[in-house]
Amino acid sequence: MIAVHLESGRVELRRRPRPALRPGFARIRMLAAGICSTDLELQRGYYGFRGTPGHEFVGEVTDCEDRKWLGQRVAGEINLACGDCDWCRRGLGRHCPNRTVLGIVKHPGSFAEFLTLPVVNLHRVPASLPTEQAIFIEPVAAAREILDQIRIAKQQPAAVLGDGKLGLLIAQVLKSAGAKVHLFGRHRRKLRIAEAAGIHTERAAKKLPERAFPLVVDATGSAGGLRSAIAMCNPRGTVVMKSTVHGLVEVDTAPAIVNEITLVGSRCGRFEPAIRLLASGRVRAGDLLSEEFPLARAPEAFARAAFRGVLKVLLRG
Amino acid sequence: MIAVHLESGRVELRRRPRPALRPGFARIRMLAAGICSTDLELQRGYYGFRGTPGHEFVGEVTDCEDRKWLGQRVAGEINLACGDCDWCRRGLGRHCPNRTVLGIVKHPGSFAEFLTLPVVNLHRVPASLPTEQAIFIEPVAAAREILDQIRIAKQQPAAVLGDGKLGLLIAQVLKSAGAKVHLFGRHRRKLRIAEAAGIHTERAAKKLPERAFPLVVDATGSAGGLRSAIAMCNPRGTVVMKSTVHGLVEVDTAPAIVNEITLVGSRCGRFEPAIRLLASGRVRAGDLLSEEFPLARAPEAFARAAFRGVLKVLLRG
Repeated sequence: MIAVHLESGRVELRRRPRPALRPGFARIRMLAAGICSTDLELQRGYYGFRGTPGHEFVGEVTDCEDRKWLGQRVAGEINLACGDCDWCRRGLGRHCPNRTVLGIVKHPGSFAEFLTLPVVNLHRVPASLPTEQAIFIEPVAAAREILDQIRIAKQQPAAVLGDGKLGLLIAQVLKSAGAKVHLFGRHRRKLRIAEAAGIHTERAAKKLPERAFPLVVDATGSAGGLRSAIAMCNPRGTVVMKSTVHGLVEVDTAPAIVNEITLVGSRCGRFEPAIRLLASGRVRAGDLLSEEFPLARAPEAFARAAFRGVLKVLLRG
Repeated sequence: MIAVHLESGRVELRRRPRPALRPGFARIRMLAAGICSTDLELQRGYYGFRGTPGHEFVGEVTDCEDRKWLGQRVAGEINLACGDCDWCRRGLGRHCPNRTVLGIVKHPGSFAEFLTLPVVNLHRVPASLPTEQAIFIEPVAAAREILDQIRIAKQQPAAVLGDGKLGLLIAQVLKSAGAKVHLFGRHRRKLRIAEAAGIHTERAAKKLPERAFPLVVDATGSAGGLRSAIAMCNPRGTVVMKSTVHGLVEVDTAPAIVNEITLVGSRCGRFEPAIRLLASGRVRAGDLLSEEFPLARAPEAFARAAFRGVLKVLLRG
């Protein structure tokens, strides 16, 4: 099969044998796979990654002991937990210290004709959800994780910083939970996508409002985002940290302490409610699609995904 | 009267008129006042402070419209709230944006023969609580604030980083709430004080345990403390930020996000439960007293308080 190989910043195509099928696993033919900011970071050398990246996908099960999965169109959770440790027993396999992670940590990813995942990681994609929207299940789950971590009151004002893919999804997820969302971003075109989804948007000017929101989500992806979020947050308010920035970030912790702000680290989320949000149309992901490339043009697709202003780039299997 | 005057790092004694009595306020004769790390930071130039510092005190009410306070031995909450804004109406006067703060922000402090405070800020000190222990009401309230912010389960393991005054009080407060406390510090003598209060202590070696506690409190007062606390905290765990460090702190936010850790900023607390903790003996503060000086020797007392290994230094009125 063809698979993307990432090493030392180079994106190449390689011929590989199909991945072996281990007990409890399914082999899946990739139908579509999304390039995520994390993939671009792997390309820039984070995590010392070398191998096949890709963790967002929709695929069709081709081989599996449990025959009910055969032919099913599926999405898959990206953390492969050991199932045996304290974390797994508490249902927190996403934090299993022994886990591998699809296309990120020691498990070949979805930028290939075939991939494997444990059957317990699979979720059927409803027929009503087209593949190019189902590709957003993983990022919507990550956006929606916030709702599993904090309570959103009806009509609660909330600010989202950053109009990238994740920021646009978080704004919609918070709106779906009843919050009065203000999205702050720098790109007119991206803000218009949020407006079309009924979100109030503001151009992030130099001077952001201070002590103005009980809930602020930093989805800027930048080192300065957390500092801005803390400044915008009300005393006793909550800042959700969604920007994985590598290396040390300079934070002015004093205002967070003086104003007794709670900072909540937030990562991956559950797939079931994300699928419901997409299937019901309460989160509109289609507008976030920028371009599609066949897998064989993956190097070009990576270059495009890194381009300023581009949102989601898809690879087709 | 005599009052301490702090300016450009110099601690001096000055003669001043007694502070005027405004409606709703009490004039209080200082009996004892504690020098806190914040006072040493004011001396080092933080907040551009100039004036009379001091926010920990026990005093006797000498003048007050409401005669029931006359002659009472009192401690006082340090935030002077406007009483009028949204925050005050929600009972969060400690976060009132218009507040002044005793000895810190625009209200002369307790390192003087007399001070004034609104009557609503005053708390009677029970007869059973000697003045040199009652001086710890404010810092115990700050330590105990954690219990108003997060739930402590019985026998829940908790790590406290830092064996300074605040760390020693926090360890006792968490123990009083049922936690299984491990105090990590660098000073044998200070750790022994915690051990005498029944706390398990560990010398903070170079290598601290990782992913080891569901709750970690950073009371190191140092820029590196938060980083260590995040590394020691379990996934989905809580880190309480009690180290007000000035300027920017370099934090590796990625592990906080990947492990979905919640960071809680924590500052001042309520006095009533702090008084109960001290009066019941469940928090032992007496061991934290290092030395006493008369007010007239304040410059010497400040120098002593800044000395390595010294705990609480008292000024006597």
